[in-house]
Amino acid sequence: MNKEDFVKEITNIDENFAQWYTDIVRKAELADYTETKGCIAIRPYGYAIWENIQNYADKLFKESGVKNTYFPVLIPESLLQKEKDHVEGFAPEVAWVTEAGGEKLEEKLCIRPTSETIFTTMYSKWLKSWRDLPFVYNQWCSVLRWEKETRPFLRSREFLWQEGHTIHETEKEAKERTLKMLDIYSDIVENFLAIPVIKGIKTETERFAGAVETYTIEAMTYDGKALQSGTSHYFGQNFTKPFDVKFQNREGKQEYAYQTSWGISTRLIGAIIMAHGDNRGLKLPPKVAPIQVVIVPVAMHKEGVKEKAEELYNSLKDKFRMEIDLRDNVSPGFKFNDWEMKGVPIRIEIGPRDIENGVCVLVRRDTQEKITVKLDEVDKEIDNLLVEIHNNMFETCKKRMNAKTTIAHNLDEFKANMDKEQGFIKAMWCGSSECEAKIKELTAAKSRCIPFEQEKVGDTCVCCGKKADKMVIWGRQY
Amino acid sequence: MNKEDFVKEITNIDENFAQWYTDIVRKAELADYTETKGCIAIRPYGYAIWENIQNYADKLFKESGVKNTYFPVLIPESLLQKEKDHVEGFAPEVAWVTEAGGEKLEEKLCIRPTSETIFTTMYSKWLKSWRDLPFVYNQWCSVLRWEKETRPFLRSREFLWQEGHTIHETEKEAKERTLKMLDIYSDIVENFLAIPVIKGIKTETERFAGAVETYTIEAMTYDGKALQSGTSHYFGQNFTKPFDVKFQNREGKQEYAYQTSWGISTRLIGAIIMAHGDNRGLKLPPKVAPIQVVIVPVAMHKEGVKEKAEELYNSLKDKFRMEIDLRDNVSPGFKFNDWEMKGVPIRIEIGPRDIENGVCVLVRRDTQEKITVKLDEVDKEIDNLLVEIHNNMFETCKKRMNAKTTIAHNLDEFKANMDKEQGFIKAMWCGSSECEAKIKELTAAKSRCIPFEQEKVGDTCVCCGKKADKMVIWGRQY
Repeated sequence: MNKEDFVKEITNIDENFAQWYTDIVRKAELADYTETKGCIAIRPYGYAIWENIQNYADKLFKESGVKNTYFPVLIPESLLQKEKDHVEGFAPEVAWVTEAGGEKLEEKLCIRPTSETIFTTMYSKWLKSWRDLPFVYNQWCSVLRWEKETRPFLRSREFLWQEGHTIHETEKEAKERTLKMLDIYSDIVENFLAIPVIKGIKTETERFAGAVETYTIEAMTYDGKALQSGTSHYFGQNFTKPFDVKFQNREGKQEYAYQTSWGISTRLIGAIIMAHGDNRGLKLPPKVAPIQVVIVPVAMHKEGVKEKAEELYNSLKDKFRMEIDLRDNVSPGFKFNDWEMKGVPIRIEIGPRDIENGVCVLVRRDTQEKITVKLDEVDKEIDNLLVEIHNNMFETCKKRMNAKTTIAHNLDEFKANMDKEQGFIKAMWCGSSECEAKIKELTAAKSRCIPFEQEKVGDTCVCCGKKADKMVIWGRQY
Repeated sequence: MNKEDFVKEITNIDENFAQWYTDIVRKAELADYTETKGCIAIRPYGYAIWENIQNYADKLFKESGVKNTYFPVLIPESLLQKEKDHVEGFAPEVAWVTEAGGEKLEEKLCIRPTSETIFTTMYSKWLKSWRDLPFVYNQWCSVLRWEKETRPFLRSREFLWQEGHTIHETEKEAKERTLKMLDIYSDIVENFLAIPVIKGIKTETERFAGAVETYTIEAMTYDGKALQSGTSHYFGQNFTKPFDVKFQNREGKQEYAYQTSWGISTRLIGAIIMAHGDNRGLKLPPKVAPIQVVIVPVAMHKEGVKEKAEELYNSLKDKFRMEIDLRDNVSPGFKFNDWEMKGVPIRIEIGPRDIENGVCVLVRRDTQEKITVKLDEVDKEIDNLLVEIHNNMFETCKKRMNAKTTIAHNLDEFKANMDKEQGFIKAMWCGSSECEAKIKELTAAKSRCIPFEQEKVGDTCVCCGKKADKMVIWGRQY
């Protein structure tokens, strides 16, 4: 297979972005479809990305006082029904176990779509006094939501995530935890995955079922769609009252605890693909890349080439996540394309001429730039380059997000902007759900969030024209 | 609550071991029962033990070439039925999803009891050539088996585990992987959890459903029962044939791959409790203990005590997993008992007199020994002590296992030994399933394994008296 054929295997990103996405997921061996409809198998290369995200996130969680736990995958129907809004939101998309151990169950059990109900039930048993608080618990697990349309990583029926569930003595402390987690999430997405996000608060329509407030970080894909990348919810006492999570407060009185929950998921892998990828394939940010540097020897049959490449590999492998490609049944050209498709940030080419000159060539995945480097300076050069690649990838996304963000003052402008180029629209909003619904109906764009960083782009609602003081970010979503 | 009352809260280990076990699980806050019958919630202290096991194991796995993945939790009924022995073994204890997304499913889906069927299905899609082999994949996940009688950690309907599934080019390589994993498992249990094990091969009756051979490591509990602590299976082509996992071999011919699978689970937490615990509570081996050292200041109200304790804590916290107990609503005596119950290997007591003398007191959880140490030597002393505690805990278990292992030459001796004291029995076996069944019926003991380290304890089968050349370890099980 030559270079051209190789690239042709992937659908053009500007012609059919959805198909391009699926091609990358499968050709880069991140995941594959399974016999279980709507569920994927995450392959080693995809799972290694998730492990890196987990390690980075889990460290930040623990530093902030989070403790890991594990709660049952099955939730009795009666528990799910205790909080009215919650069951309305989730019941339509759950999967039910009705038979087990050869018998029909007396009460059916759902596979958790999220675990507020079961955490809150256990908290009601464990909590006695203000001295026990806070409970800042998390679990890394899978959840199931029976989606009609699925897409690998972005919307799978089963997906991996972490779900944090906390209870606190005071409203203030619970709200601080809600925002603290949003900060951690934006740290993960921006500083680890090199994807800029907008932080804000969801409108009532877009709020999590049962929450008082839902906070979100919103990213933008290559094709200008919005990708909700992490959410953090403040529940007040919405669950602790029906679930009877009480404690003796400092004044000796019984009080209901204040609650939060928050989650990020394998959807972030989808975000990485959609924010950074190009026509050559996947493009992985250096910090999360399972392989940061791959060595491809050129003219490997020539004396000393393989040995020198291996020597280089051994000198670098304790410092970077390395791979060396010694396959003897494909050409260097094939290998170059293969590793570009897999998104490895830096490729090292080394051949007989390079060895003679005591150099090798570093090729950046993000810019395709080739840099000739002395062998005894490779180490330091890679260090710098990985940082530079991260920064460049972040800036590229940021520029795109800015370029694809426009302002609209009325519905005509809104539609015109969206028709011209799919992206974010900043517009004032009066606060009514009717206006939100109308905008969605006319433009297929939903409110993404009321961003923390407000900007006065007008005085009147983009939809109804009434007085408005909230600037909202709107966009079509994945 | 004084010391006496505290200890009374735990059932005496020699009077009712089963109740003692449940007390420890709940009082040490390792886990609790949930509204989902037969399923537990693993609390932070219990989960931290599991995380430490995971980290240790995962590192060994990866060093040996294992790659992590994630496969769907739901398996279609038709896949489960492809391998005859396998479905017979597992179908009676699976849980079935029959409704989802508001509709009855056309084909019911089981929650994985183990994932041979779905891994093998995907392998059949991915495998083309000998060049692709081996696939050495693993997943950390939960599985569900609808047990009639459950016990936290030891036999929960849902439990956490890792399941490795590998396919290979040759029988030899697959068999090597099977044994390699058994070695890793015994490394984990002996060197990390300080529990001695016996390595061996299961009899046909005790073999995993669908396997050619099952290898096992068997530990012994405080009360002399056997605890299967890890298993590794060689499947030959039993699954790859019905699932059509073929590859083009080096001769250009189609061949079925050779397969293995292997697993350890949160049952190991049960093993830790049952092998090491005593009447004071849990006793954690230092390497797996979430808290290795706890500092309890004495006379904390006296000037400078709290400050000195905190100073000590800060000087040690980067080197050991530390806790400092500054609760002001309970006495030091209560704290001593509390941390002993939680099994923390070393307690540091520090009071005004100690501070004056520039010392503190280290108390070993395993021997109760008190050691006065100079403050500037605490660091080194703890280092040594943790090693010593590990070794002492291992040796204590080893001695007990030896003391509770007897030899039997005939059924009368077998019964007499078992009646005298529950433990392991070494006895010769002719190889027939009938003899195994009869022994089980008469003594409630099952064959644990045919140990690798054979010993000629006779010439004739302990049951039928016919010629026998296999020495088998027998025991009652949890």
